[in-house]
Parts: sequence; structure tokens; C-alpha cells
Amino acid sequence: MFIETIKTDGLAHLSYLVGDQEEAVVIDPRRDTRVYEQLAGEHGCRIRAIFETHRNEDFISGAPVLAKRTGATVYHGPNPEGEVAYARILDDDFSIQLGRLRLDVLTTPGHTDDSISIVLYDTEADNSIPTAVFTGDALFIGDVGRTDFYPDRAEEVAGLLHDSLETLVALGDHVLVYPAHGAGSVCGGGLSDREFSSIGHERLTNPALRLLGDRDAFIAHKTSEQHYMPPYFKLMEQRNLDGQAPVLQQELPALSMQQLSELNDCSWVDVRGTECFSGQHLGGTLSLPIGMIAAYAGWLLDPEKSLVLLAENEAQANTAYAHFYRLGFDNVRGYWKLNTNQWTIERGQVNQLQHITAAALASALQDGSETQILDVRKLDEWQDTGVISGAYTAYLGQLSSKLGGLRSDRPVVTVCGSGTRAVVAASLLKRQGFDQVKVLWGGMQAWQQSYSTEPYTD
Amino acid sequence: MFIETIKTDGLAHLSYLVGDQEEAVVIDPRRDTRVYEQLAGEHGCRIRAIFETHRNEDFISGAPVLAKRTGATVYHGPNPEGEVAYARILDDDFSIQLGRLRLDVLTTPGHTDDSISIVLYDTEADNSIPTAVFTGDALFIGDVGRTDFYPDRAEEVAGLLHDSLETLVALGDHVLVYPAHGAGSVCGGGLSDREFSSIGHERLTNPALRLLGDRDAFIAHKTSEQHYMPPYFKLMEQRNLDGQAPVLQQELPALSMQQLSELNDCSWVDVRGTECFSGQHLGGTLSLPIGMIAAYAGWLLDPEKSLVLLAENEAQANTAYAHFYRLGFDNVRGYWKLNTNQWTIERGQVNQLQHITAAALASALQDGSETQILDVRKLDEWQDTGVISGAYTAYLGQLSSKLGGLRSDRPVVTVCGSGTRAVVAASLLKRQGFDQVKVLWGGMQAWQQSYSTEPYTD
Repeated sequence: MFIETIKTDGLAHLSYLVGDQEEAVVIDPRRDTRVYEQLAGEHGCRIRAIFETHRNEDFISGAPVLAKRTGATVYHGPNPEGEVAYARILDDDFSIQLGRLRLDVLTTPGHTDDSISIVLYDTEADNSIPTAVFTGDALFIGDVGRTDFYPDRAEEVAGLLHDSLETLVALGDHVLVYPAHGAGSVCGGGLSDREFSSIGHERLTNPALRLLGDRDAFIAHKTSEQHYMPPYFKLMEQRNLDGQAPVLQQELPALSMQQLSELNDCSWVDVRGTECFSGQHLGGTLSLPIGMIAAYAGWLLDPEKSLVLLAENEAQANTAYAHFYRLGFDNVRGYWKLNTNQWTIERGQVNQLQHITAAALASALQDGSETQILDVRKLDEWQDTGVISGAYTAYLGQLSSKLGGLRSDRPVVTVCGSGTRAVVAASLLKRQGFDQVKVLWGGMQAWQQSYSTEPYTD
Repeated sequence: MFIETIKTDGLAHLSYLVGDQEEAVVIDPRRDTRVYEQLAGEHGCRIRAIFETHRNEDFISGAPVLAKRTGATVYHGPNPEGEVAYARILDDDFSIQLGRLRLDVLTTPGHTDDSISIVLYDTEADNSIPTAVFTGDALFIGDVGRTDFYPDRAEEVAGLLHDSLETLVALGDHVLVYPAHGAGSVCGGGLSDREFSSIGHERLTNPALRLLGDRDAFIAHKTSEQHYMPPYFKLMEQRNLDGQAPVLQQELPALSMQQLSELNDCSWVDVRGTECFSGQHLGGTLSLPIGMIAAYAGWLLDPEKSLVLLAENEAQANTAYAHFYRLGFDNVRGYWKLNTNQWTIERGQVNQLQHITAAALASALQDGSETQILDVRKLDEWQDTGVISGAYTAYLGQLSSKLGGLRSDRPVVTVCGSGTRAVVAASLLKRQGFDQVKVLWGGMQAWQQSYSTEPYTD
């Protein structure tokens, strides 16, 4: 009897292979599914069923691909947005036995209408005492699911989540909790980076669960939350209904510099670390390091346009490619193993990105220069720490549509938490014709060590 | 904040790397310790401390080796059998902080006098609500620790364990449980093969915990248990006090057939699967497949005598070698990649082991033959299923000293649960001069499908 946790970085996504004796199920598979088949093989199990705890909006479900490869049946909760072409719809009565292990379904709507949780019983220990629960995006460790996907029904769905959480808490303090996301996910704000918990520990320490029993207070709390939702989510939601023809991940072609040059109708994405990008990069490229693909590709890239990747090496290119594949970007044409020396010799100029220390920035601001500060963090960060006096604020995901407030003929310093997102922002600005762009080294963490901020006002 | 579980097959031993931010501790390291250093490196942590939840008797602690390699301090519970040369003794007040994570010590004697449990707090979630507990050999999933190590104080230590378990249960239902052993360990009988549980789930389903509150009933239950203890345990206990000079694991030399022949003062141990041994093996060798080394090497091998291993290939030899190293068998001289064809051509005869079906055995017994049945399982198995009528019973570990009841000039059929231990027993008998030895195919599981047993009587 085993639970294998498969953690997918970037998405901060947790999926599970659960089994006993010779059968297993997969809960919320990601789109590159070989890992589940490999682990099932190691346990001597066949994958018999696949559960989706809800219609995912932040990645393309691997269920259609995995079902095609293994013959497993896909199960999805009731009340989806539309027909889930590749799945059977189940309800609260659904139960499945694998060896000595039984999985019962609990409908737990709120995050989405079709959200379910899956309760695990070790029937050898006891037939009616639950052991663990897979909570999808209803209950996380340290937070609960966001409820902003139905703006017209905001209070109703927050109330539904409240009731679902009460159902989960009623399972008992002793029940282990296995959620679908960990810290860093776009699906919640206050997720802990601890990956082990129980219903009781959440009941006692999860701030949102402390509101249980006061339904109105819970609804007020949830409807006051601010979340960002990239426009790309809608596309993934739709694809997670129709399932498309399951696209298997292809080999990513390595490109020559000549081939790269011929792909000038594509978006060129530099997936190296931001330090490398700052050091040398090709003009007109977007910096999007691997760890930021899941959160920002859906904002910053046109899904209709093909991509080419600029990477340090094949391994890095393939890792980035996997991150794009999980989001459904099936239009990656290849990668170039970036060689700025070769480019300089054969094609001409490459670019550097200038950084500036907090001290130099403070000094520049005191001198009354024309320097514009662009803070690309999120609303909750602006609220938590305040902002540098006079800063222009625009969330990185929405930056392209908010550049109107900045003058491209004057200096801009991009600012974020520690200096990574600010590089991405700078690469965007330079593509938009800003030519005096610098990045604050160490971001607000460096700034606040010596300099003050002012409260953020909307 | 992370807990990494390191599972060591054979010993069915669970050790843990626990850490946050840049510091980690190891709980109950095994003797081949590289895995802890590798995992700590992946988490960007240094190993700051090592805990032994008790003086181990079933394997050599890795604490002295790991301390030497990393500079970490070793902590051991109070009241050890003697001075633990390499450790500091701690008590109930001991606490250590790693990033946002705090570990508090609870003394939980009973299995041994020096047993401790370690309670984990995620202080970011809450400073006083425990999250998880590392229970050593006090509490397992589905069972509790054995209490037969102090025969003169059997009732006293069973009572101590009762009280320790009450202390653990008082932590709260929501607390996750991380024990030092899983199913298959010699340190308990009824361990579940499930590897996830909570205090509450154990309180509700663990048969031993159901006796809590009735101290006398608990003591009566524990003192009625039957456990086997190989004589080798005493040696390991002593070595886990003095720590010896920490012996690092050396490369295992590959031997030529010529070199092998010159090592005829050694015990030759065939570590291949029992099917291979049955097919062809060298005369005078002991069959001891890898999965049985932890449980039986301490019974069947003379610790004063050097070993050579006969294996299918280098990988198998090295895995077997690691299992011996964990037990403190530091006298493995090398391995021969077994080639029975070469042996036959250059040295002469190799041997096969005959198997017999349940039907053929039943028929032979009906004919009133002189066939002797040797059942090498354990007491609880004899009691659970009964035995074949007329079977001679001797636990495999104690077989060498119990052969007096069998005639070596008559046929013997060795019997176990499913047919593996019976091969080991047969190899022992053949070394002792029994020349008409067969193995019951499929063991008692096959026998019971068609034939009856009779109750076991002492």
C-alpha cells in the first residue's frame, strides 16, 4: 500500500500514484505522464483509473494522454463547465477498491463546481476509519482554494467552499491531507512549503479553516481576496474539457544559428537564468527562466505564435520545453544552444542588461533625476512592504498593457522582490523600445535594508 | 521545510532527513550514509545533528560514520546500557531549532531504556501545536515496539512502553507518525506495509493502542508475545555503544575463480535469488538471497569468519555487500561472478536442488515413506496455519542447533511459507551432510490449497 507524490516544479503541482498489490490510480496527472507509468512499474502495478479532482485551469491535464497509453478510465467530478470528452462523470457514491485500499469520492465544490476530494481507507486497518484524503484545490496546507473563477457567483461559491471544508474537517483530525498544490502555486496565496499535514493540523493552524462555522465571515474573507488570472487560463480550461487529440511530447529539435534566423516569425524566449540573460542576450528576446514559465508564459506569450528557445544546453532546453508542454504550448519549434560569441562574430551586436544598486538608485532619486521606478510585484507584496516613493506599479503579468504610464525616452529602473522578475520586466521593456532600462539589484529586499518605503495606495 | 524518508530494504528500516532552510538533522542513520549527504546537498542543507531514537540492535548505527564525515553532533537518549562513546546524552528538555522548524525530545522508554521520540513543530504554522513525531521503535504503524530485551524486567518495561505510548497519544490525533521500521522488520510482528499514518489513526486502528488505559492488559499482551532474537544482536548492541573506529565502506574486490578457491577458510554465501540457487550452485555454499541477509545473517553466519559472496553480477554483489555492511560484517573478502559452466569445466561437479509439488509430497506421505518434513517458519506462522501432519518444526534461524531430531540418511522435505526460506534451509542441510533434501514448491500456501494441516503443539 503506497502513496507516491509526484511534485512538478514551476506549477508547484502535486499529483499522486496510489496503489496496493497490483493496481494503482493516478490523481491529477500532469501532461508528461511517463513518470506515473515508471513508478507504477516499480510497484508492479497497472494503472487502472485516473482521477481529476477538478477541471484544471493552470495546466493541461495529463489524463487523456495517460488514458490513451494505459487504457485506464478517467473519472471527473459532477457539474463540469461542459462535457469532459475523455472522462466519466462520477458522484458522491463513487468508490473503487485496489487490493486492500478503498477510495471513496466526496464532492467538495467551491474552487470549481466540479471539485471532488478522494478519501483513502486502509481496509485492512479498518473499513470505516478514513486514513488520508486527496483534497485537490479545496484544501491546501496553510490555505484553501481560490474562489474567484465565477465572478457573478462570488459569494455563492465561497459559501460552497465553506461547506466543503466542513465536510473535509468532519473526516476527523487523524486524516492525512494530500493537496494538489504546494507553495508557489498560482492557485492560492498562503500555501505552506511544508508538504505533510493532517485534517487536525489544518483545523488548528490553517487561517482559513479558523473561520469555519461562521459562514458569512468565511465568505467575506474569500471574496475580499485578490488573485491574478492570466487570460491563458480560459484556453486551458477549454482544452481540459475537450481533451483534444492527446498530443504526446515530441523530441525538441536542436537548431543551427541559420535555422534560428529563419524562424523570425516566432517568439524567441531565453530560458536561461536571469544572471546569464543580464550578462549577454540577443536583442528582442524575452527572458523567461524555467521556474517562471508556469506562472508567466500564459501572460507574456501569444499562444497563437510559435516559440523558439534559447538555452545554455540541451538539458536546460528540454526542461523548459517540458514546462511549456504542461501548459499546452505545443508550438515550440526548437532550441538554439546559445552562443553569444558566435552570434557577435557572425550577426553583430548582443546586449547586456544594466543593474543598479539600492544605494545608487537612492542617490539618483535624491538628485531629482528623471528616473522612473517600475515595481512589477503583486498587489499583496505592494501592500505588505509598501513601495519606493513615486514608484509606478504594474504586475509583471499585465505589464504589456500598462506601459502607457511610463516614458520610453527616460530611464526606467525595474524593481521586484529580489531581482529576478525585474529582469523579465526589463526584457519586455527593451522589446517595447525602452532603451534606458536598469534592474534594481536584490530588489526590495536590498532596498529595505537601508531605505524606507511608503504605503501602497491604489 | 521537508521530511525525506530513507527506506532500507532488508532491515525494513526507515530513517529520516528533516530540515528547513539551510540546516538538517538525520534520525537513525544506517551505516552507509552517503544517501543522507546527497539528499542534504539537494536541499542546500548542512547536516547539523544526528539523533538515535534508541540503541539499535538490528543494525550498526551510521551515526559515528556520518558524524565523522559531516562534523554533526550525535544525540542519544538517556539511560543507555553503557557509555555511548560517540554521542551526547540528552533528556526530555532537549530542543533544537532548524529554520522555522523545531524538534523537541520526548523520552519514550519501553522498547529500550534509552528510547526517545522526536516531536516536530512547524513554528511558522504554530509554536505549540505539534505537526509530526518520529517514534523510533516505540510506535509503529499497526504495532508497537517489542519489549523482550530485558527478560528479568519483562513486566516493568512493558509498563514503561504503555506509559510512553500514552504520552505519544496525548500529542493529539492530528500528529503525523514517522516510525523507525516498516513491515518485515524483526523489531515487531504486526507492522502494516502502509507507510503513512497519524497518532489518531493509530489510536483508532492499532491493536496494541486499543489496550491503552488498561495497563495490566497491555503488560499481559506484551509479555505473552514471542519474538526471536539472533545471538548476533548482542554484538551489534555493544558496537552501537562503543562506536568502534568508524569503518567506511570499502570497494568490494571482484575475485577470479583461482582467488576464490584460495579463500576456502571463508564462508561462501550465494546471494542470488533462490530460483538461481536451486538451478545450479556450488557444493557447500549457503544460500542467502539479498532480502534475507538482514533477518538471517546474524543467525546463520559466524561473525568471526570471513565471507566471500557468489553473485550473478557486480551490482548484485554490491547490494548484498551493503546489506552485510549495515550489520557490521566488515569481513567480506570479495565476490565471484558465479559461472557454473566454468566451474564445471575446470573444477568439477556443481549441484542442483530438487523441488517437490504439494501433490507429490502428499502422495509420498500417504505411501508411508520415510520422508521427513522440516517446517522452518516461525512460531506465529505454525500457530496461525497449523502444520503438515508429522512435520518437524525448527525456526530457520535456529536450525543448525536443532538438526538432532532429523536423520540425515533419510529424505527431508523443507517447508516454509511460499518456498524461499525452505531453499536456505535446504542449503544448510546439505552442508551438514543431508543428501536427500527436497524443497516444497510454493510452501504452505501451495499445500493449503489442497491439503489439510493439523494444529501446532509445542
